[in-house]
Amino acid sequence: MRLRNKPWAKEKIASYPQYIIPQPEQYKGRWHELFANDHPIHIEIGTGKGRFITEMAKMHPHINYIGIELYESVIVCALDKLIENDLPNLRLLNVNAKELTNIFAKGEVERIYLNFSDPWPKKRHEKRRLTYRSFLELYENILVDEGEIHFKTDNRGLFEYSLVSFSQYGLVLQYVSLDLHRSDFEGNVMTEYEQKFSEKGNPIYRCEVKYRKPMS
Amino acid sequence: MRLRNKPWAKEKIASYPQYIIPQPEQYKGRWHELFANDHPIHIEIGTGKGRFITEMAKMHPHINYIGIELYESVIVCALDKLIENDLPNLRLLNVNAKELTNIFAKGEVERIYLNFSDPWPKKRHEKRRLTYRSFLELYENILVDEGEIHFKTDNRGLFEYSLVSFSQYGLVLQYVSLDLHRSDFEGNVMTEYEQKFSEKGNPIYRCEVKYRKPMS
Repeated sequence: MRLRNKPWAKEKIASYPQYIIPQPEQYKGRWHELFANDHPIHIEIGTGKGRFITEMAKMHPHINYIGIELYESVIVCALDKLIENDLPNLRLLNVNAKELTNIFAKGEVERIYLNFSDPWPKKRHEKRRLTYRSFLELYENILVDEGEIHFKTDNRGLFEYSLVSFSQYGLVLQYVSLDLHRSDFEGNVMTEYEQKFSEKGNPIYRCEVKYRKPMS
Repeated sequence: MRLRNKPWAKEKIASYPQYIIPQPEQYKGRWHELFANDHPIHIEIGTGKGRFITEMAKMHPHINYIGIELYESVIVCALDKLIENDLPNLRLLNVNAKELTNIFAKGEVERIYLNFSDPWPKKRHEKRRLTYRSFLELYENILVDEGEIHFKTDNRGLFEYSLVSFSQYGLVLQYVSLDLHRSDFEGNVMTEYEQKFSEKGNPIYRCEVKYRKPMS
């Protein structure tokens, strides 16, 4: 995604602490208190401009959503959508995904969405891909047992890489589509990027994987 | 593949017992005697007209290849190629894949190739797909520990199904390409069908999976 410099973004983020939670570490192990209910928590890593998670939050009021986005200039677009809709089951975090285990306790998250993550195509940047094994380990440390990752991308190289990475980590494939928009999958919510990209007719790849039950 | 009725096929097959082995059960546990060496054995299930396995046998003289094909009217084309080339490291079997465990002992086969297998797209025919779990169990019972399946197809539905089936059976993905002919994979040998099909520009899907080491 092209990043525009928005010098006012930081200030705007700070003005809406009810939507973009400052110091999210303070909620580690007690996010249910923030939402004031016991509904499952689903997070999206790399929320971008927020279309996906905002629509999901509207469609599924009994799920709590947390959108995580590193770039201030992008998360302000997601913030605008949240200001407009004032959804009680959606909050945003302006943090790096590497901080996940400082923010969530083991078992606090039920599902992780990765949508159109940066492909980092160069081999020397492999460790930055959000499906690299060190990230899969991070996710495992915040997910419930048998927690799920739902992943979609238009990048063939990243999808091929990720299928192998998931499998070698021990995750089990539950669902895969190699052409999401020409499949029978129902209820797909498109991201901004997906809508734009899919108009070109190229396939969108999607999969759902699940962590194995830990050995007792 | 379109099957032509060839009433003479049965007789031709019977005339070349040195190439299409009659009663292959007799070699169970001692295929190395037939080849008169200890080279690894790779088999192709659904060899069709035999282009793939014939070319592989030429390229890799230190691998023993066995092509398995149920249809008499098709295997005679593979037989013609073998008569022409007289390859000492290639033999054919005119049997049903369900017979595999009567033909090979556990650990006798190192690798299985599945190329453009019948997709059996109807849900009620799922059990006939060569990547259905009962076949994965059969294969496990003839393969070495950590034996491999190399699979390619142009059928998106079958490939999606197979990735999930492999994963749920516990196989580990080693390699995947979602567009083989536009990937950096080297040494691809095309089947008759693949050559014809790929001229239309549609993607060929390919993967390599490996059985997990058994728990000791």
